[in-house]
Amino acid sequence: MNIAILGFGTVGSGVYEVLEMNRSKLAGSAGEELKVKYVLDLREFPGHPVMEILTHDFNDILNDPEVDIIAEVMGGENPAYEFSKKALLAGKAVCTSNKELVSKHGAELLKIAREHNTNYFFEASVGGGIPIIRPLNRCLTADDILEICSIINGTTNYILSRMRDDGMDFDEALKEAQDNGFAERNPAADIEGLDAVRKTAILASLVNQTQVECDDIYTEGITKITAADIAYAGRLKAKIKLVSLIRRADGRTWAFVAPMMLRKDCQLYHVDGVFNAVMVKGNAVGELVFIGSGAGKLPTASAVAADIVEAAKHRHINVVTKWEDEVLALADTNDLEYNYFVRVPAEQAEKAKGQLLIDEIADAGIPAEFAFVTKRMNFGEFKRRSEGLDTISVIRADF
Amino acid sequence: MNIAILGFGTVGSGVYEVLEMNRSKLAGSAGEELKVKYVLDLREFPGHPVMEILTHDFNDILNDPEVDIIAEVMGGENPAYEFSKKALLAGKAVCTSNKELVSKHGAELLKIAREHNTNYFFEASVGGGIPIIRPLNRCLTADDILEICSIINGTTNYILSRMRDDGMDFDEALKEAQDNGFAERNPAADIEGLDAVRKTAILASLVNQTQVECDDIYTEGITKITAADIAYAGRLKAKIKLVSLIRRADGRTWAFVAPMMLRKDCQLYHVDGVFNAVMVKGNAVGELVFIGSGAGKLPTASAVAADIVEAAKHRHINVVTKWEDEVLALADTNDLEYNYFVRVPAEQAEKAKGQLLIDEIADAGIPAEFAFVTKRMNFGEFKRRSEGLDTISVIRADF
Repeated sequence: MNIAILGFGTVGSGVYEVLEMNRSKLAGSAGEELKVKYVLDLREFPGHPVMEILTHDFNDILNDPEVDIIAEVMGGENPAYEFSKKALLAGKAVCTSNKELVSKHGAELLKIAREHNTNYFFEASVGGGIPIIRPLNRCLTADDILEICSIINGTTNYILSRMRDDGMDFDEALKEAQDNGFAERNPAADIEGLDAVRKTAILASLVNQTQVECDDIYTEGITKITAADIAYAGRLKAKIKLVSLIRRADGRTWAFVAPMMLRKDCQLYHVDGVFNAVMVKGNAVGELVFIGSGAGKLPTASAVAADIVEAAKHRHINVVTKWEDEVLALADTNDLEYNYFVRVPAEQAEKAKGQLLIDEIADAGIPAEFAFVTKRMNFGEFKRRSEGLDTISVIRADF
Repeated sequence: MNIAILGFGTVGSGVYEVLEMNRSKLAGSAGEELKVKYVLDLREFPGHPVMEILTHDFNDILNDPEVDIIAEVMGGENPAYEFSKKALLAGKAVCTSNKELVSKHGAELLKIAREHNTNYFFEASVGGGIPIIRPLNRCLTADDILEICSIINGTTNYILSRMRDDGMDFDEALKEAQDNGFAERNPAADIEGLDAVRKTAILASLVNQTQVECDDIYTEGITKITAADIAYAGRLKAKIKLVSLIRRADGRTWAFVAPMMLRKDCQLYHVDGVFNAVMVKGNAVGELVFIGSGAGKLPTASAVAADIVEAAKHRHINVVTKWEDEVLALADTNDLEYNYFVRVPAEQAEKAKGQLLIDEIADAGIPAEFAFVTKRMNFGEFKRRSEGLDTISVIRADF
């Protein structure tokens, strides 16, 4: 069985490495030897053994009937979209970690795969090495999925963990994350929540079996979270996490990505650093949590390689994944009930006490401020009740 | 597609309930309606709708060509073994939660299924509702599995959690667990570790693709754990958990079930009450943790029902699970390195200090005792070094 790897960046070189390192395990799992016949990249890699199989032309791969499976790990929409489409049309299986492409064109690419008796697999697109796509599609098939609540961006979880554990401010923690390779030089997609939104859209599309658009998902990143917010959270025995939520009830679906304060009775509270966690609630199975490395070369490559095995075992047999291209109208996140952590100037303390239903006052030794957690209410009500208050911070809390 | 449920106890009635409750979701997942045509049980259930499809004779099911899938949820070795074998020989798929049967006869039943183009699925046999068997077989196919460390018995985890949180002694916590339905009237299989050993044997057989016998797995239950041990653990900022460990290195496999002290840097530390957790370490994916309800009617039924869906999607197509009947010789658990928590009479304090490499002294306000945690060493060395000491407790610790 011959494989082509599109893109020899972090994930691509990881896939190459895993296929080498675990060659015999993979052959056993797949039922035959898996051989990397091509690596596509615009760059050269002088001295690296990959040079012998490097090509700069996708057509070398597309037109080679010996290539059965393509690992698309180049990222970005283009040319990944064109390459994936052409490969599937030619009956080749495509395995990808590309969440941007999957969230935008998953429905179409799955349809092409189905029509051409091949497969489009994307386990690595959500949660890195954590098996979550296949468990949703193959294991939780007897459950009505009521909720998926997750930490699916390792960069922001690392930053928030560092701010908490070492009292760093946001910029400082971001810089450290960049220096350690946990954040990209252009960190916008991570810290503004876009990366988490794409993954949320993929999960929401899968559980609803129809398209959920990234643009429809309410999104807040972590750029406004300050050291003071983290200090208050500590006093409240809570941690701030960038949470992705999908909730389903009465035929409606809500989805958002936003920072939230969580306490230790929530499993996600315990997930720190670059770890990711996906909590799935089913109406029969109850609460399940999947925890693991959400990013990183080898964990992500492990998921791509497992998809390659699955593709090898299903050559010319489509494994059905239901995801129609009709766009789902999401319900209004203003309906969802939470507590809210709020900071206002000290002089507005009485006003805040009068307007908002305060459950707990928070003190982080900042005399110029009055900070508190409200009782549970929906965000619409919260917005009405907080009118006229000059809020310094508002963070959802699930206490 | 017609289903027969063998055994209408807790799990069986749960399977019936899930198939009713999630009928349309299941039909969507399976690609066609799933109908329960028979329930086999020796008892009568007056007034229950199941009476209309109840039979006392397995042959009614075996000889009905319309029955495609059998949910064997009766438990115990016999007659479950005979029924499963006959069903598979007749080409019917069998889905089970029966860890005793799977751990003893899994290899043989899988072989019969393979030879008769049908399937023997047992997702529910380990970890209740937690998807772990299929993720191991279908998702972690690119990884060399180095370790599986888990809490896979909910009863003992509940008892240990109650002892810790409410200062109960073992007998008291056990009685409460029985009163709440979390422990059986005859709790031996749970508290002496046998239930966990069976699940460990199944996981160890799967990762090694060959038979691991329960009798070969070193086993300690929790019956010797006292309130004093729990108090010491608290002082050491640790919890005592009944841990199932499978470790693989250099072509060897170690497996044991024993109580261990864990600290909060271990993910299993955070898993309390009836929850189960399975931590899998792969050489590419790193550390993954799967957490969920390890027992209970609906969670276990959810896993059986998901197996039924998988069986429906693979009618007359065997999904290969490699598990040969050749027995694996396990490596000696005396080789494994841990810390050891030890209690000796106060008068042996100096002797203990002289013989054992003490890392940390523990004080739970019991003047008649001297308690401590050793440095890491293998159990063989520990036994040599503790000769002549009248140990009151010895508990492995992973600090």
